[in-house]
This record gives sequence, C-alpha cells and structure tokens, in this order.
Amino acid sequence: VKLHLVNPNTTPSMTDKARTVACSVAAKGSEIIATQPDDGPVSIEGYYDEAIAVPAMLQKIQQHNNCDGHIIACFDDTGLDAARCIANGPVVGICEAACHSAMMLANTFSIVTTLSRSVPALMELSHRYGVSSRCVSIRASDIPVLSLEDPASNARAQLEREIAEALLQDKAEAIVLGCAGMADLANALADQFEVPVIDGVGAAVKILEGLIAQGLSTSRARGYAKPLAKEYRGSFSGYAPVTS
Amino acid sequence: VKLHLVNPNTTPSMTDKARTVACSVAAKGSEIIATQPDDGPVSIEGYYDEAIAVPAMLQKIQQHNNCDGHIIACFDDTGLDAARCIANGPVVGICEAACHSAMMLANTFSIVTTLSRSVPALMELSHRYGVSSRCVSIRASDIPVLSLEDPASNARAQLEREIAEALLQDKAEAIVLGCAGMADLANALADQFEVPVIDGVGAAVKILEGLIAQGLSTSRARGYAKPLAKEYRGSFSGYAPVTS
Amino acid sequence: VKLHLVNPNTTPSMTDKARTVACSVAAKGSEIIATQPDDGPVSIEGYYDEAIAVPAMLQKIQQHNNCDGHIIACFDDTGLDAARCIANGPVVGICEAACHSAMMLANTFSIVTTLSRSVPALMELSHRYGVSSRCVSIRASDIPVLSLEDPASNARAQLEREIAEALLQDKAEAIVLGCAGMADLANALADQFEVPVIDGVGAAVKILEGLIAQGLSTSRARGYAKPLAKEYRGSFSGYAPVTS
Amino acid sequence: VKLHLVNPNTTPSMTDKARTVACSVAAKGSEIIATQPDDGPVSIEGYYDEAIAVPAMLQKIQQHNNCDGHIIACFDDTGLDAARCIANGPVVGICEAACHSAMMLANTFSIVTTLSRSVPALMELSHRYGVSSRCVSIRASDIPVLSLEDPASNARAQLEREIAEALLQDKAEAIVLGCAGMADLANALADQFEVPVIDGVGAAVKILEGLIAQGLSTSRARGYAKPLAKEYRGSFSGYAPVTS
Amino acid sequence: VKLHLVNPNTTPSMTDKARTVACSVAAKGSEIIATQPDDGPVSIEGYYDEAIAVPAMLQKIQQHNNCDGHIIACFDDTGLDAARCIANGPVVGICEAACHSAMMLANTFSIVTTLSRSVPALMELSHRYGVSSRCVSIRASDIPVLSLEDPASNARAQLEREIAEALLQDKAEAIVLGCAGMADLANALADQFEVPVIDGVGAAVKILEGLIAQGLSTSRARGYAKPLAKEYRGSFSGYAPVTS
Amino acid sequence: VKLHLVNPNTTPSMTDKARTVACSVAAKGSEIIATQPDDGPVSIEGYYDEAIAVPAMLQKIQQHNNCDGHIIACFDDTGLDAARCIANGPVVGICEAACHSAMMLANTFSIVTTLSRSVPALMELSHRYGVSSRCVSIRASDIPVLSLEDPASNARAQLEREIAEALLQDKAEAIVLGCAGMADLANALADQFEVPVIDGVGAAVKILEGLIAQGLSTSRARGYAKPLAKEYRGSFSGYAPVTS
Repeated sequence: VKLHLVNPNTTPSMTDKARTVACSVAAKGSEIIATQPDDGPVSIEGYYDEAIAVPAMLQKIQQHNNCDGHIIACFDDTGLDAARCIANGPVVGICEAACHSAMMLANTFSIVTTLSRSVPALMELSHRYGVSSRCVSIRASDIPVLSLEDPASNARAQLEREIAEALLQDKAEAIVLGCAGMADLANALADQFEVPVIDGVGAAVKILEGLIAQGLSTSRARGYAKPLAKEYRGSFSGYAPVTS
Repeated sequence: VKLHLVNPNTTPSMTDKARTVACSVAAKGSEIIATQPDDGPVSIEGYYDEAIAVPAMLQKIQQHNNCDGHIIACFDDTGLDAARCIANGPVVGICEAACHSAMMLANTFSIVTTLSRSVPALMELSHRYGVSSRCVSIRASDIPVLSLEDPASNARAQLEREIAEALLQDKAEAIVLGCAGMADLANALADQFEVPVIDGVGAAVKILEGLIAQGLSTSRARGYAKPLAKEYRGSFSGYAPVTS
Repeated sequence: VKLHLVNPNTTPSMTDKARTVACSVAAKGSEIIATQPDDGPVSIEGYYDEAIAVPAMLQKIQQHNNCDGHIIACFDDTGLDAARCIANGPVVGICEAACHSAMMLANTFSIVTTLSRSVPALMELSHRYGVSSRCVSIRASDIPVLSLEDPASNARAQLEREIAEALLQDKAEAIVLGCAGMADLANALADQFEVPVIDGVGAAVKILEGLIAQGLSTSRARGYAKPLAKEYRGSFSGYAPVTS
Repeated sequence: VKLHLVNPNTTPSMTDKARTVACSVAAKGSEIIATQPDDGPVSIEGYYDEAIAVPAMLQKIQQHNNCDGHIIACFDDTGLDAARCIANGPVVGICEAACHSAMMLANTFSIVTTLSRSVPALMELSHRYGVSSRCVSIRASDIPVLSLEDPASNARAQLEREIAEALLQDKAEAIVLGCAGMADLANALADQFEVPVIDGVGAAVKILEGLIAQGLSTSRARGYAKPLAKEYRGSFSGYAPVTS
Repeated sequence: VKLHLVNPNTTPSMTDKARTVACSVAAKGSEIIATQPDDGPVSIEGYYDEAIAVPAMLQKIQQHNNCDGHIIACFDDTGLDAARCIANGPVVGICEAACHSAMMLANTFSIVTTLSRSVPALMELSHRYGVSSRCVSIRASDIPVLSLEDPASNARAQLEREIAEALLQDKAEAIVLGCAGMADLANALADQFEVPVIDGVGAAVKILEGLIAQGLSTSRARGYAKPLAKEYRGSFSGYAPVTS
Repeated sequence: VKLHLVNPNTTPSMTDKARTVACSVAAKGSEIIATQPDDGPVSIEGYYDEAIAVPAMLQKIQQHNNCDGHIIACFDDTGLDAARCIANGPVVGICEAACHSAMMLANTFSIVTTLSRSVPALMELSHRYGVSSRCVSIRASDIPVLSLEDPASNARAQLEREIAEALLQDKAEAIVLGCAGMADLANALADQFEVPVIDGVGAAVKILEGLIAQGLSTSRARGYAKPLAKEYRGSFSGYAPVTS
C-alpha cells in the first residue's frame, strides 16, 4: 500500500524527520510518500499559520489521491476535516492518532507541546476527540518548532522538565508528544521516564495501515460528503476539488 | 466607528444582503464596510469550502485592519480564530453571536441551517461555544446556500417546515438561522412563529459595537497572540501577517 | 430607548456606581434608569442573601416594565429567570453578559470575585451558561462586597494579587470581574495587566441595547411563559404578576 | 427525631398529602412536622412562583430550626441552597432525593412532571445533580399542579400516557414523579408499569433520616456558610437570619 | 428488615469493622448480616483484585438473597451492576452511597483513598455517578488497605495530611473516605476538621433501609434484567444464577 | 508477532469466527492465537455474565503472556482493565478499537448490538471512551448472541432494520457492530448501506499490531500497575497473578 504523509509546513527537514519515523514503524508492504506544500509558513505555531497552511496542503492531498490513504503530520491536525472531504482513502491526523492510542495504554495522559500559543487549539482538539477528561494537562515547553531541528538548542532539556512535571504533578500515566518535530525523541524519552511516550507520526502510520487493511474509508454520508460542484473564483480556482 | 463585515464566500449578492441587514440594526455612528474575498468558492457548504475560503478572507481582514472591529458573516465562523490573531480590533462570528444571544433569550433553541453536510461543523461549534446542552437540535432544511438568493426556490417553505418541527418535536424555545443568506427572513419568521428568531449578522453587529464601546479587544495572551515573524513561502508569501 | 438597571441590594452607593459605569458605555439614545429594591439585604453574599433579595427586586422590574429592557446588576444574576417571566422586554444579567463576552475575546478566562462563600453559586452559573470548560478558575479575593465602597480598604491590592495568579497559574487569557462593585476598576486593571478585563455592567448594557435594536425579547414558549393567573396569599399578594 | 417538612406553596391540601406520604415511610422514632408558608402562591409553576415562594418558606425553616432536619417538598427544590445556609440540620429537596435514588435503582430514568413551563428548571437541576446523562427525558403531562388535588380531573390518565411513552420511546428503566402532588400515586403506578416509580417526598424523608442517623449535616465551609451579619432593610428586615 | 453487607475481600477483621459501623447507624428493626467471600484476595487494590473478587462475592449475594437488600462494602463498588441483576432486593455500593450523600451536604467534596493505583477506578465511578464536576479531587494517601487494620501504622496521620490539603488546596467543602477500612474514623475526623466526613458504609446502610422502606428495588427493565437462562461451563457452573 | 485473541465466552464457534476475521486482516508476520476460557457462560449478555466470565478469561491472558499482545473479543470489553494489569504486552478491547476507529472515519456513528439488556453497559463504555457526544445511538436489534451463530435465524434482517434506522433517524454517518458474533457481516453490510461498517475484531487486531510495532505497551504508572503481592484465598488462589 502507498501512504501519503503530508507535512503541512514548508520546512524540508521536518518532512524528512517525519518520513524517517514513519518508515521505521511501517509494515513491510507499505510505501511512505512524504510531501510538503509548495507554499506556506515554515512552521505552524498558532491559529493563523494553521489556516494559511491548509489550501496548499490540500493540493498535495489532491495530487497524491492515488495513494491508499493520507497522514497529516502536524499536531494541530491542520485541515483534517477538509482533507477527508476530498481524499479517496482514509485520512489520519497525528494528534488524533496519538490521543486515541493513549486512551488504550493509560488511564490518564498529558500532551507536551511547543509554545503556549498552541495550547488552546490542542485543548479544542482534546474536547473534539473526546479525551479531555483523561488528558490531564497540555503543557507548553516554550520551544519554538524549528528549535527542535537545531541540535544546539536546549529543547530536549525543556521537554524533559515538562514531562517530569506532568508525571508528578498532573498524575499522567503516559505522555503524548505534541509536535511532529519531536517524533524522533519518543523512544529515548520512554526509556528515560518508564511510561509510554507516544509520537503521533508513528501512531498515525499504524492506524492508517489498519484502516486500509480493513477496507475502511471516510464516510460520505453528511459531513464528509465530496464537495459539491461549484465555482472557485480567482487564484483559488486551482483548488476546485473533484466533486461528488 | 467603522465595522468591517466580511462575507467569506465570493457571491456579491450575499455580501449585499448581509450589508443591508447589518445597516438596519447598526447604531447611528457605525459605518459598515462590507467586503468579500477576491478568490474562493461562491458558497461555503462543508469543511472543504470553509478551509479554502479562509486565506483570501484573512487578506480582507488585513486590508481593513484600520477598522474598529470585524464580523465574519458565514455561519461556520470560518477562520474566526485565525482572524483574531491578526486583527487589531475584536472579531465576532455570526454563529457565536447568534448562539450567545439565544442563551440570553430562551432556555433551549434550535439551529436551522442549509444542507446536512454543514451540520457536523455546527455541532462542533455548539460544543466549543458551550451551548450544546441547550441547543436541542441542528436541523438541515436541504436548501443549498445559493437557493436562498433565488426568489423562485421554495426555500422559505422548507425553512418553515423545519422551524415548526424544532418548536414542536425538539421543544425549542427560540430559533437561530444557520446561514448568513437567511438574515433577511428573521423578522418575518419571528412574527409567524411567535418565538425569537435570531439572525447572526444582526447579532454580531450589535455585539461587536458593544465590545468596541467598552474598549475591549481580543486577548493577546497565549492562543490569540499576534503571529510570530516567520517566512511564508511561495504564493502564500503575500499572506505573511504583521507579526507580534 | 429606556434601560432599567436594578441593583438587587439596598446600598445606594452601589446603585450609583453601576449607573455611572452603565452611562459611560451606553449609546447616545439610551437612557439608564437605575433602581434598587426598597427592602432587602445591603449586600448579596451567598445563597441566602440572593434568595431574600429577589421579590423586592422583581417589584422594581414590574414597576419599570415600561422600559425597553432590564439589567440585573449583581454578579449572581439574582432572580434572572423569574425576571424574564414577568418583564415585557429582554433581561440581561451581568454575569452572563460578562461570560458570553469573554468567550468572544479569549480562549480561557478567570472570574475574580469577592468572598469564597460566593464561589459555588458562580460555579453553577458557569455550568449553566456553558462556559465551564473555558472558565479556568473562579477566585475569591476575600473582599467583602461593601469594602469595595471603602477607599481605605486594600481591596484593589487583593484583587490584583488574584488576577496575577489567574494569569500565571491558571493560564487565563482574560479576566472577568465577579462583582458589580468592581465595575469602575475594569479599565485600570486592563491597562495594568494587558489582557481584557471585563465588567459585567458595561457588558450587559451593550448586549441589552443590541437585543432591543434587533427587536428581540425573551421567548414566551415554555420556561419563560408569563406566569399563570393564580392567588398569591398574605403579604406576598402584592407580588401577583401581570399574567399570561 | 423531628423532621420539618415544608411545602413551599400555600395550599393546605398539598401539605396534608405530603405529610401523609411522609408519615407512611418514616421510621418509628421520627416525628413529621409539616408546614406551609403564610404568604405566597397557591402553587409553584415556573420560575416566578418559585422565586416569590422562597422568603416565606425560609421563615418556616427558621421557625422550625429546632428540628433535626428539613425537607423542601416542591419538586423544583425551591430555595434549597438558601435553606442550607440557615438551617441547623441537614436539608433535603425532593427532586434531589428522587434523582439520587433513581441512580441507585436503574441505569436510566425519566421525570414526569406537570406543565411544560416547569421543564427547563428541572433540566437545570438534572445537570446540577449530575444525573443528566442518565435522565433520558423530562416529560410534561400538561396537568396544572392543583388539578392533582381534583379527583374529577383526568390527571391520572395523562400521567399514565407519559409514563408509557417514557418507558417505550425514551428507554427509561425507572420513573421519577416530578411534583409533590403526585406523591400518593407512586405505589399504584409502580404496580401498573412494573418499574420503580420514585416519589421525592418519601425518598427525602428516608435520606434525611439517614443523614441525621449518621450525625451528618450541611458543610459550613464556603458555599453554605451561615449568613454574614448585615442589615436587611424595609419589610425584609424580619428575614435577617441568625448569622455565623 | 434484614440487610446483607458483603465485604468483597477475604479479610475477616475488615468485615467486622464494617459490621460494627453498620450496626452503629442501623435502625432499630434492622438486622445486619455481614459476610465475606470464601475465595479471593485479602484486599482489593486496583482493577485486578476487583475483577477476581467478584464471582465469590456474587455467590454470597445469592446465598443471602432472602435478605431485604444488600450492601457492597468496598469503595470500588466491586461487582455492583452484576449484583443488581441477581439480587431480589436493592443493592447499594458504599462509593455511590457516599458520593450521592456528599452532593446533598456540600457544593464540593474530595475523596481520600488508599493507594494511587486505586484512583483511576474511582475517577471512572465519579463520572458514572455524575459527581465529577463537584468531586474536586481524588487523593491517594499511600496507605495500603491492610495498614488500616494495623494500629502501629501511621495511616491516620497520612489521612489527615491529605484531608487538610483537600480542604485548603482543592477547596473541598466535605470529605468522603475512600475505603471501607476507614469507616471507623469518620466521626473523629469530622470533629477534627469541622466539615462533614462521609463514610460509605454508614451511608449505604441508611440509603438501603430507605429504599426498602419505600418498597423500591432495582428496575428489571433492560440493564438490570434477571440473567437469561444459559449454560455456565466448567468450575463456574456453580455460578449459574436464578434466571428471569 | 504473536497476538492472543481471547473470546471471553465459552462457545467455540464464536472463537472460530473471531479467529477467521482476525486472520483475514492480520499482517503477514502476525500469528493469531485464539482461545476461550475453560469455565464460564456460553454467551455474555448483560452485567452478570460479564462479571462471571472475567476470572477464567484472565487465566487465559496469564497462560498466553508470552504473546506480544492481547485482544478481548467481546463487545463489552469484559475485564479489559484487569487484563491490562497482568498482561506483559498491550491489551485492546474490540469495543474501544471500533469506537476509536469510528471517530476517525465519521462525524457521528451508531452502535448496533444484540439485546436491550446490553445497552446500558455500552452506554457507559461510550462515556468512558469519550465518544458519547458523537455516538448518536446504541440500538438493540433483539438478537440473542447465539442466534448470530444460527443461519436459520432472521438475525441479519433485524440488524439491517436497525442500521437503516440509525442512518435515517439518528443521522449516523457510520455503523459499529456491537457484538463479536457479527464480525463476519461487516463487509457485506458496508456494501449494502454504503457507509463504513466497523467490526471491532478487525479493528482491534490492527490497533494491537500498531501498538506493538511502535514498541508501546500499557503504562505501569498508577492505575495499571502490576498487582501487589498478596494472598488469594480458596479456589481463587490459582488466580494470584505475577506481581509487580
């Protein structure tokens, strides 16, 4: 099967990191096609970046619609609902994949993310995914996304500090890493803290493979119906989707 | 004061209708500047249209950032969070305005919207705005948005049928009209059914005027902080916002 | 339009303060008629005072039922439901006005009120108004209501301490002042803490003006139906309302 | 022990009926003292009656504060929080007693009450008492309260119709009778429908006896602290409570 | 009436303690029959013990099904739903009894239990019983269950420390003791901390007596229907219940 | 990898059916070891059967603890929490697997199960798994579990009727099959109704494979800690687990 992983920001090193993690857990028969949009912000930090990143990311979904399914590799699950409307196969976000996985591994968990400006969007996702009563905290580590790409930053230390607090103060039984850029750290942190540390990229790959193996895809009834045929004016005319 | 009302779709007749309703309730000193994006779908029906409409709509917010505040005149509250991050003044969505108003007029209410594909997004908004336990139903009338612009359609009759059901079956005490294109019908429907019928455009104008009069604007702490300075690549480079 | 603002306690200086704040935000054409009940407690601190204050406050609503709408200027929204049943125009409570406003300005907020005995009633209101998942704390400042009228008290300092904690510990993005007696402090505190500080009196005036401008009033279907004709015995016979 | 049962309306036949039911379940050593306020509405139907009934009912609590505990025998649990602040012993409302009992007898239950205007207040209580996800419906039988006192009315038949619907349509496993005036019907309806039919008067008597036997009474920490000493002006000066 | 109290673990001293507390609050006419299963763990600490303890405990329910009702005297309310399906009379768990009682005595409460491994199960019960928004904390005191039987342990001191924190930090207005083994400490702790301290054993006895006095028992509609006749194979064949 | 699938009832044909479905979706390297307890009920219908089935099922988990993970193939997720405490690898229930999958395929879904007596337990699971606001109905088809094994029964027709109602009346976008015995029908029903029809057995196999591939297992912090060393008396002494 062919899995399309799209990193919604435009930083190639983050796409590479996500691809590496994805390949490390993918089943033998799975091919990972990792892309990033041609246009948009170099990182997604807050609601504005999220909104701007979506159309060019959706183009990548359209371009790779021959794949068996798609992974959106940004922890805000940017554009996930829109992607489901146009994708032929199932679409999995890394936040939802991590959160649903955490619910099957622990009674409570915490999300440790980058900047405090990203916390409210994750709070909303935790409500939407139904995990808010067991997601006991969403902690910002004050690490800008791109610092995770910089070996000289003290990102790892800040992350460890927040994880320690989540386990001790918030009584979390597991940790969810709240940024695709942290995907490569999951195993080491799990060893260090002796609790499950869940990275959404790996979780999404396996859940997507699972849905495909079962022949399951997005429902077309109501909310995720294929878009109606209609005019898309101006420079967005290129975004008119294949309609229902 | 100058109020910027942006209709997120690209159909001028809907912008005109929203402007007319807005002007009919605006205070004497309020000037309504009604715009629509240059690019994007002619109507917003479902998650995909919503996502695509946002960037060009945000440009309108940026272009009119000298206004005292903004109204997003689509019942999905399309791009509301992103708009708050870049707007200098407060931003009010017509769904939130109508929902919060309904909470102060009735114990229960129903939303009557256009197509069933739009219901799940409104369901999520009802949770997010905290009104889900009193919003007793969200009913689709099976009217495409642009049929509301067509006097020959039987849109009014379908709307009336759903309102009648909401009052009788769902025990709604008030009705919220779930599309900006229905804004001109609120008064007539209220007279007909003898319950409050709330149109979000009018509600948003008054709430926005009220916030401005109190000197209140969006918090810059955490979630709605001004975007960080960063690169926006490719054709979206024009969307790089004024940063914090 | 004529707006009736009733302070449910019997302390004239609090009525005056509320009137002053109300006038400072009211639209040009709005006349504020501020009253207080003839009978009842000098301040409302807890469930007992709240219950006792209601009948005489409702009399004021009846006496001023020629006004276009009413504001109940106590943060417990004392008697709000009963007032809606008898008032001809819409009725807005200052707690609900402030809470719904906060939801449109910030992702999270805290309420800072007077005594700890008042917190549980506000907790219930936060659930009822649907804001409990975003109202991250309700903090008591240990200031008795009437100390707010005393310039020699250290009320301001205690209030500042709780606001600082709400922003830092509870991650509030905005502050709601939890007592009508704090209404005059909102602007200064907003300047000091650089987040929205919302006073319910001002918020209620603008929301009420808005509802009136839209021709909206309380639903008469079900819960807020005009009272049935019936006998009110003894000294409460004077409270028999105009019935449906 | 001495149990004070107060019927918050001023209709003696309802007080008598409640006393009879209370005595039929009371323990041998329990004495029931049943009272009604001197002033106020002859029945409580909706928010206005509820608010007006409270002060004179609280006077009865004060006058009988030598009793070991109190029962408020109106299904709106009228004035319950205020009563707790002034009563020396525990206070139990018949709605809360019935709801908490239902939670221990069935997975789901329905409340069948009198008029539709009373439903929203019960909806709020169901949220407040934490039973809303298992209270699958609150049905109005369109019976005015005082019709329950009239043997010629068809109240019983209307009640039966709603119970049948609750069991069949709403999948209720038990029924809660939503008015003190229905208390005498519980046993017959239980026999007829073969599910638990819970009357709040009986439930409250037993729960109150139980709390007293355990030496438990209302917490004085925070929300139910005894009222602060303060002035009660005008005709309500007679309502100044014994303070903390 | 005859009340069957079953301690689901196999430690006789805990059965004795529960019997003593039960007898101290039981009505004159009530006879307490206290049992423990013949097989199973000596204490119940976490999900595994809970699951293993149930079948032999259910046998005790069957053997004493001539009693008028049953109390399950473990704070996990171990096997409560299953017991309701086979018991002829009502069945009350000590956790539910304590939680529902707390809701009628205080606005907020905390549960103080034994080990942290037991907290998640209680968290789930607090959601199920509808008390989670008012149960402000569930605190582990790090006391193994059987240490409560050992006068030389410092269990009392650890319990006091957690209660003090619950009152101060968590703003609890009442305390629920989260283990049957703490039942004898309730009165002394209530005197010491001057808030209600609720022991589930006493609470359950009184609630059960109350249900019996009202002629109420478990609904047989749907969830608690008597088990269907079917084969129980192997060593569990002895557990085949009397069927519907 | 070796996956242990335990059918908690003692009917071999159901074990066989679950094995067949599991094998049909399992990855190439996965070996399915399907077992059933030696003792216990032939089908699980309601709380009593569920409780009785657990200990012998847990024995199977212990006996196969050399496997890489476990699947509990009963839609009540019978004994899931206890199994997590003793299993070395991760444990997945078929209800949770199906529910979490549905959340990633549709905005709303319905569960169609066997008998109405099983509905309340599923209602509780839907709350616990956080899916209750999107699980729009749990419908009983009135099919006893073992009728699903009988080709002559009209089980399929009854199931179709309930699915049709769920899609039309309840506005479900996807269907979850609420019994392991329906696992073989998922594909045919999906084709017939043109919405995703999710079978928990298949879903659980893929989720479990995914967790194992990521190196994730149950957290040992707090709730799922390995059982403490303690005595298990009588015939349950054989159930003493390997302790922490």
